[in-house]
Amino acid sequence: MLRHRQWLLKSRPEGALSLGDFEFREQHIPDPELAPGQILVQNLMFSCAATMRNWMNAPGRSHRSIDLGTPMLGPGGSQVVKSNHARFPVGTRVTLLAPWEDYSVLEPDTSPTPITALPSEVKLTEALGIYSLNSCTAYFGLLEVGQPKVGETVVVSAAAGSVGSMVVQIAKIVGCRVIGVAGGRDKCDLVVEHLGADAAIDYKHEDVGARLRELCPKGVDVYFDNVGGDILAAVMDNIAVKGRIAVCGQVASYDSGAPAPGLRDMMRVIYRSVTVRGFVMDEFMQDVDTARADMKRWVAEGRLRHHEDIRTGFENLPHAFMALFNGESRGTVIVESGEPAEG
Amino acid sequence: MLRHRQWLLKSRPEGALSLGDFEFREQHIPDPELAPGQILVQNLMFSCAATMRNWMNAPGRSHRSIDLGTPMLGPGGSQVVKSNHARFPVGTRVTLLAPWEDYSVLEPDTSPTPITALPSEVKLTEALGIYSLNSCTAYFGLLEVGQPKVGETVVVSAAAGSVGSMVVQIAKIVGCRVIGVAGGRDKCDLVVEHLGADAAIDYKHEDVGARLRELCPKGVDVYFDNVGGDILAAVMDNIAVKGRIAVCGQVASYDSGAPAPGLRDMMRVIYRSVTVRGFVMDEFMQDVDTARADMKRWVAEGRLRHHEDIRTGFENLPHAFMALFNGESRGTVIVESGEPAEG
Repeated sequence: MLRHRQWLLKSRPEGALSLGDFEFREQHIPDPELAPGQILVQNLMFSCAATMRNWMNAPGRSHRSIDLGTPMLGPGGSQVVKSNHARFPVGTRVTLLAPWEDYSVLEPDTSPTPITALPSEVKLTEALGIYSLNSCTAYFGLLEVGQPKVGETVVVSAAAGSVGSMVVQIAKIVGCRVIGVAGGRDKCDLVVEHLGADAAIDYKHEDVGARLRELCPKGVDVYFDNVGGDILAAVMDNIAVKGRIAVCGQVASYDSGAPAPGLRDMMRVIYRSVTVRGFVMDEFMQDVDTARADMKRWVAEGRLRHHEDIRTGFENLPHAFMALFNGESRGTVIVESGEPAEG
Repeated sequence: MLRHRQWLLKSRPEGALSLGDFEFREQHIPDPELAPGQILVQNLMFSCAATMRNWMNAPGRSHRSIDLGTPMLGPGGSQVVKSNHARFPVGTRVTLLAPWEDYSVLEPDTSPTPITALPSEVKLTEALGIYSLNSCTAYFGLLEVGQPKVGETVVVSAAAGSVGSMVVQIAKIVGCRVIGVAGGRDKCDLVVEHLGADAAIDYKHEDVGARLRELCPKGVDVYFDNVGGDILAAVMDNIAVKGRIAVCGQVASYDSGAPAPGLRDMMRVIYRSVTVRGFVMDEFMQDVDTARADMKRWVAEGRLRHHEDIRTGFENLPHAFMALFNGESRGTVIVESGEPAEG
């Protein structure tokens, strides 16, 4: 028998998340029988991404929707503990879109989302941190969608976060001037001193529009938008001619229950010839190896780093996830589930 | 002495245009002396474009703003009547951004907007109609900004208008399925029967969202947006994954006095990977000869046509311009000024 804990989606949140939106379940289950091609994994680590908040909504409001009464889903790092698949022998470590549960039966060849075996030299925390799909999102969103040119000014919101902190550094690596927007003095210090941005704007205590006018007298060439709302509006007021906005997330509105308010002045989009391009990481899946190779090189050269905010205890997963929305987290929040006792 | 009529911008309109926003002035002026490099033109024809409504606003709300008390500006067709410039001898016909007045002194080499001599085989009405910058706007906005592929579905608003009618036809020429949106049954019939669209939606009498769902079950690949507002919102509800929106105008809001309402649901922009790209014709100025060559070939092949809605009398200019906003016009509205008597 296996001790099997789960966090299920109990209700679709309206407004801010609460613990009551999640239901904890603990069972003892028999060791599962595997069909051909199946594997049993033990999920060892879970990372938390803001976009998972969207997956809690009803279908049609995001590109993915978790069914009520089923486990929450998020990026995970797991180990194969039983196998009926030649390419995934017992002991293989994988990254995957993992249900929030101790054990999952998977079928790698038919899984709609990739289950990727990890090379032995990569740590699970690195796979969920610096080399994660979040980092690839930063890489492709900035370089492919934003198309920054040497010397251009790039603005990034949620600049101390998992995606934003990588955008700041990659934009510096490719030769841009970078302004990070973050909440609070501590995060702003981190963005400038640790990540290397040229300046930071504390949206909680500063007038973002006024600071952008001051810091970007020639306008914002590329805006990597993680938050939407008022900061998007302030950037639009300061966008350069032929400016590009890579729309990655709209965290400012995730808790509002209402649709993200959007772009408020389309005439400016016209007469400044602005490109606004939404994207999801799925578009670039075929090129993640390129992104990871570049990032590994930059890490080796000491030009790229990542903060992994590692927490412990499967029981704490919802609380750790909620930290993304109350401004408490830095970098990537990763929860180590802790060894479940077998009984 | 020359009889010299002018229409001046009297006040910046808030809400719908009225005749009171324009002031008519008539003077008799001495035949002007020309400095070296200057020419005197007689403005024979004026065409009316919706974007001129934006130029009536205060600076900062558009890429061009007409000063109060100075003549309105719009595309014009003129003839050189006195010349101090070797490349523009007396009799040369030119297109230009023309002040609404009988005579203008111009300096072709320093003019901020191009003054283009017309080849003798091109009629002035054609230069202001089918081969105008409006048509080039349709050409570049569709082909360069919208990037339509063979077999894709293109939706165009203001489809019976000067720009929209060209977009419908060019989209058919490059192998797309085309849905035009226009106001009223007559215009919709014109869009399908005369311009060759696959279907038309009458936004005044039909539910645009419901009709788009029905007509575009696989979603809208390219939307050429001339109007913004509710029609933009309905298209966004039906946009295909990797859909592109070429934002050319926002006529629905020009008369509201408020900023164009914009894109209302940014999450959809993200999870459908939508590109929203505003543009102005100025971006493509260096390539207009290519556009005109293509259009001439299509005209010769009988695949492209244009309706010129020709009206008479300089005195009627504001009224003709206002016809763009009350749904009365078709194609390009051109006003022949009528020969002013010389006295």
